[in-house]
Amino acid sequence: MLAAIMYGPGDVRIENIPDARITQPTDAIVRTTYASICGSDLWPYRGYAEFGAAGRPMGHEAIGVVEEVGAAVRNVRAGDFVAMPFAFSDNTCVHCQAGIHTSCLHGGFFGNSEVGGAQAEAIRIPQADGTLVALPGGADEALMASLLTLTDVMATGHHAAVTARVAPGKAVAVVGDGAVGLCGVIAARRLGAEQIIIMGRHEDRIALARRFGATDVVSERGEEAVEHVRKLTGGYGVHAVLECVGTDQSMQTCLSIVRPGAAIGRVGVPHEVDIPALAPTFVKNLTISGGPAPARAYMDELLHDVLEGTIEPGLVFDRVVSLDEVPDGYRAMDERKALKVMVKM
Amino acid sequence: MLAAIMYGPGDVRIENIPDARITQPTDAIVRTTYASICGSDLWPYRGYAEFGAAGRPMGHEAIGVVEEVGAAVRNVRAGDFVAMPFAFSDNTCVHCQAGIHTSCLHGGFFGNSEVGGAQAEAIRIPQADGTLVALPGGADEALMASLLTLTDVMATGHHAAVTARVAPGKAVAVVGDGAVGLCGVIAARRLGAEQIIIMGRHEDRIALARRFGATDVVSERGEEAVEHVRKLTGGYGVHAVLECVGTDQSMQTCLSIVRPGAAIGRVGVPHEVDIPALAPTFVKNLTISGGPAPARAYMDELLHDVLEGTIEPGLVFDRVVSLDEVPDGYRAMDERKALKVMVKM
Repeated sequence: MLAAIMYGPGDVRIENIPDARITQPTDAIVRTTYASICGSDLWPYRGYAEFGAAGRPMGHEAIGVVEEVGAAVRNVRAGDFVAMPFAFSDNTCVHCQAGIHTSCLHGGFFGNSEVGGAQAEAIRIPQADGTLVALPGGADEALMASLLTLTDVMATGHHAAVTARVAPGKAVAVVGDGAVGLCGVIAARRLGAEQIIIMGRHEDRIALARRFGATDVVSERGEEAVEHVRKLTGGYGVHAVLECVGTDQSMQTCLSIVRPGAAIGRVGVPHEVDIPALAPTFVKNLTISGGPAPARAYMDELLHDVLEGTIEPGLVFDRVVSLDEVPDGYRAMDERKALKVMVKM
Repeated sequence: MLAAIMYGPGDVRIENIPDARITQPTDAIVRTTYASICGSDLWPYRGYAEFGAAGRPMGHEAIGVVEEVGAAVRNVRAGDFVAMPFAFSDNTCVHCQAGIHTSCLHGGFFGNSEVGGAQAEAIRIPQADGTLVALPGGADEALMASLLTLTDVMATGHHAAVTARVAPGKAVAVVGDGAVGLCGVIAARRLGAEQIIIMGRHEDRIALARRFGATDVVSERGEEAVEHVRKLTGGYGVHAVLECVGTDQSMQTCLSIVRPGAAIGRVGVPHEVDIPALAPTFVKNLTISGGPAPARAYMDELLHDVLEGTIEPGLVFDRVVSLDEVPDGYRAMDERKALKVMVKM
């Protein structure tokens, strides 16, 4: 079957690899219909990773049709239309019960040498009963993009908002105008935020943020951006920040724009980030939270809203490519010519 | 009037200084009846501070009787028996309304050259209407120690438990067997924790922790302590940790004994602490919270429980000194010969 393999920074190739096959009775094989490229795929693309000679199978976001299930699988069957969250989990262990599916005792992540990637014609799903979520068969083609976002980007934006304790009446800032940040805007609005400040300066992204519910835009950088946020919040700063980037600069911005008692929900994977222990975190009674989103935990409620049409996160996709064109998709996202790329099989 | 002044590490003296007097119409003067020495007073005592030639007035925990009020004060009057939280606040500003009184827009801290210390015969209370809390006149002498703890140590232990999200059914660890940690045990039990693990090895403190509700004791150090906590929690680690020390070692212990999704409530003022940004904080979806306790916010509910006799935090005092003997009190706490020292005027 065909699959995207990354061999080093900037080097993604579509290769013919052995077909995905069941190795455990709890596995299922899903034939992908749509996959996508994640902002986190750009970290190795930009050199933040080690590469073996065999390369790295890429992708962890897909929807598709179950092709085959292992002997122990009960909840899904061949022919089911399903979504796969970016982490697999049994959905029953103590950590899953606590809603932290990304720390499942029998779980793990897609897109590595042990478990293949989703940017491929098919993928093996470990812990299929816990991992896969059935989607309505015959769903409208126009819904596919939004359904696909539930596997990661929309769930991640939602996790940022939940861990930042967004609630009705709160002033919220979203740091990062990438696809996760934009989904964070959707989530913040959905959770009732009164003010949603998007920090960014790409016109098309800002326009989408406004469509998603952003009430204010801060396009400055550095100290000017901080001043602008203060001005927008009566001089106090925001109650909640969604940290959707993961750099030290973005974290310092978060720490500069919050009021005392605020919470920062981090979903950008941190790279060389410094979290100061005393000021302002301790002094201002800040809460630092977040991590890899337990997409599985959020799937039901977000799926409901997508099917009802009350949220439309699929709008973050601004380019569709075929599997063959995946390397172009990476290039476009790396060069910021595309916000997020969908792969139609 | 007599007051404790610190001139440098290890150098506390009782000096005759000008009487406390009203400087703002919102001030009150309180004649202290009981004050105490705080674990945080030991930081400058051990050299973690700058000292001017005039020295530093010490103390920020006291109860006493209002002697005089400024023209704008409405809520208290001369003769009232009151408690002063360790920070003063107007109790009305946006941050006070949010329960973060230690960040009050018109607030500040006691025990510095601008606002005197509480280890003194009297003290000026800025923002008296917001700061002072009336205590029942004629309260039993046996209650005084517990009432005194509401000004800081009990409120701080409670803040650790609140920010660590202690709740019924949770497994909780308390790192630090000082007076704050012991009050953290009281708070964790009060909030319904199922399991309360005290980490410490001083026999008398452990005995008190057990009396306060600790269910388990971990006396080992380092990796053995971590293993012991894991064993006590089914291999998973705790849901909540109360960080009541503030050193890098204590923080690393906290990070090692938590399960995914856990919260760490920090109340030990951090000194040279490193909070790692990626693992385990982000990877395990940990929440880091806490800071200076908004004692004023907690006063009513904790006072209720002290008066009802359902909590008895005053037991943390194991030595009573006169104002003249305050330097001995510092020495005893520094040498760990006393857990916490009460100053009876």
